Amino acid sequence: MVTPGSSTAAPRSYAILGTGALGGYYGACLQRGGLTVHFLLRSDYHHVRDRGLTVKSVAGDFSLPQVHAYSRVEEMPPVDVVVIALKTTQNHCLQTLLPPLLKPDTIILLLQNGLDIEAEVAAIAPQHVLLSGLCFICSNKVGPGAIHHLDYGSVLLGAYHRDNLPGGITAEMDAIAADFKAADIAIDLAEDLYLARWRKLVWNIPFNGLSVVLNATTTEMMESDAARSLAAALMAEVVQAANACGDRVASGENRHLPPDLIENMLEHTAQMKPYRTSMKIDHDEGRPLEIKAIFDNPIKAAQQAGVAVPRIEMLAQQLRFLDQRRKLA
Amino acid sequence: MVTPGSSTAAPRSYAILGTGALGGYYGACLQRGGLTVHFLLRSDYHHVRDRGLTVKSVAGDFSLPQVHAYSRVEEMPPVDVVVIALKTTQNHCLQTLLPPLLKPDTIILLLQNGLDIEAEVAAIAPQHVLLSGLCFICSNKVGPGAIHHLDYGSVLLGAYHRDNLPGGITAEMDAIAADFKAADIAIDLAEDLYLARWRKLVWNIPFNGLSVVLNATTTEMMESDAARSLAAALMAEVVQAANACGDRVASGENRHLPPDLIENMLEHTAQMKPYRTSMKIDHDEGRPLEIKAIFDNPIKAAQQAGVAVPRIEMLAQQLRFLDQRRKLA
Repeated sequence: MVTPGSSTAAPRSYAILGTGALGGYYGACLQRGGLTVHFLLRSDYHHVRDRGLTVKSVAGDFSLPQVHAYSRVEEMPPVDVVVIALKTTQNHCLQTLLPPLLKPDTIILLLQNGLDIEAEVAAIAPQHVLLSGLCFICSNKVGPGAIHHLDYGSVLLGAYHRDNLPGGITAEMDAIAADFKAADIAIDLAEDLYLARWRKLVWNIPFNGLSVVLNATTTEMMESDAARSLAAALMAEVVQAANACGDRVASGENRHLPPDLIENMLEHTAQMKPYRTSMKIDHDEGRPLEIKAIFDNPIKAAQQAGVAVPRIEMLAQQLRFLDQRRKLA
Repeated sequence: MVTPGSSTAAPRSYAILGTGALGGYYGACLQRGGLTVHFLLRSDYHHVRDRGLTVKSVAGDFSLPQVHAYSRVEEMPPVDVVVIALKTTQNHCLQTLLPPLLKPDTIILLLQNGLDIEAEVAAIAPQHVLLSGLCFICSNKVGPGAIHHLDYGSVLLGAYHRDNLPGGITAEMDAIAADFKAADIAIDLAEDLYLARWRKLVWNIPFNGLSVVLNATTTEMMESDAARSLAAALMAEVVQAANACGDRVASGENRHLPPDLIENMLEHTAQMKPYRTSMKIDHDEGRPLEIKAIFDNPIKAAQQAGVAVPRIEMLAQQLRFLDQRRKLA
């Protein structure tokens, strides 16, 4: 399904917005693979400018003593691909961050979880191709310019369609995939980004949410009958919402998640190493939780499709309580 | 509605099983009121035997330097009224604790929260009158033999009917009420214990449960739109279950909770002083949670009545996870 990018063209240049667990890791891999990568940083700027990035990885440690580091987007050059690896809670910054990096044919690549987050980005750059990559990776930022890649790492790439219809496999997807493969990043292409996002939510909604509310790792949850049953019940609500939303957007297309998805995901999760989810890490480190992208938007979509999701709503309410208390603290 | 007990009979003797926040407070009040009260104690036995009970109370502090303290039920005399103020998680002990205290006309008075907890007790003493008192009180045990009564204190008394039908107002209820009133304990009589239990669950299910899961006081919850909305949604499930169960047991009787109950309870809770619920105190002190009585039994009753209670189920699953982790710790 993947067509390599033209080998005669100049290598694509990349900008990374959000040099953290995700953006830092993938950006470092792309630079190691030979591409020119420009990193936007905040608190880590001076450290990374002077000492580069280090990646401790299950796939092999490496370091990049010199990287193109910036603290202000205005100092960055326009690039061929802008990778948005911020938390969705920072997406209001894109109004400022995105335009300086764009050339007429710049591809925008969103590496973020959640649902219905592309429209806001597309509105900033309506003429540009917008792709989304769903990252299946256990990765943490463990210090200034220091990434710890614990497990997995593949990206599932899809094209945004403003009506949430299947976007198919595009030339831009092939080009990005070629770059990622050349950088030793596993990448797959999804014809139906909207369904792929829902599929990822089948895991993220229960495990990100419950890990915060129950203060638990994936292993602790999977070893408890009560938590496992609850995760399964939450997953069932997500699957029901996904299927109804798929039908609603493009009835007749096969946009249903496979019936054995929940059991397979639970089995897989039970076999994973104990894992602190990204939302749990955000919570532990006092960062805002991605409630809107991962919970509110799917709940809204489910409601519009007429599907009741009381457990997802309850989990979102619990997270919002905890998130607000963090702000007050 | 209340008929005082006969003034010519000898004063009733009481035994208190579970001399904690509840049993310690009410037992001390009854003794202060002139009745003979026998207290069963565990860890506090030596302290209370030697130094009695002290009550710090919004209604006025008092102490009882001498009380009838026992560490073994076999040493206690049979009494006119056995007050069961254990946590429901200890009710398996009643098989041993209850029989030695019974005379042929002993009244059993259960001071416990939850639903469908009487049948197990009634099976131990099938010939005895079984009453239940629902306690509306903020009270903690703060040290050996030391009770802190923070607020409220009234008891709602009802008669157990094995089919959960309204038991009416009985002579035994009047007798107990007379003793409690003489001891300055506010007491009301309920004709329909089953409905009264459900009504109390409308508060206990959301606030006991969420206080543990969210690690929060009532005030913190009421000040958050998210937590308040969630509490209201849980309450609505309890009310729906209560009404359906009332209809199921005795259709035609008026066994519905009042429509403005939820809003009134929320308003009242918002005006309460910050309160750590009894389940939160149990959790903080490493005691088992009363999940069966307060959650599992109502869920089972709701299911039998055909009412879906997904949020209550989810809260029970979360509590069970936290309770099991406590045991592992």
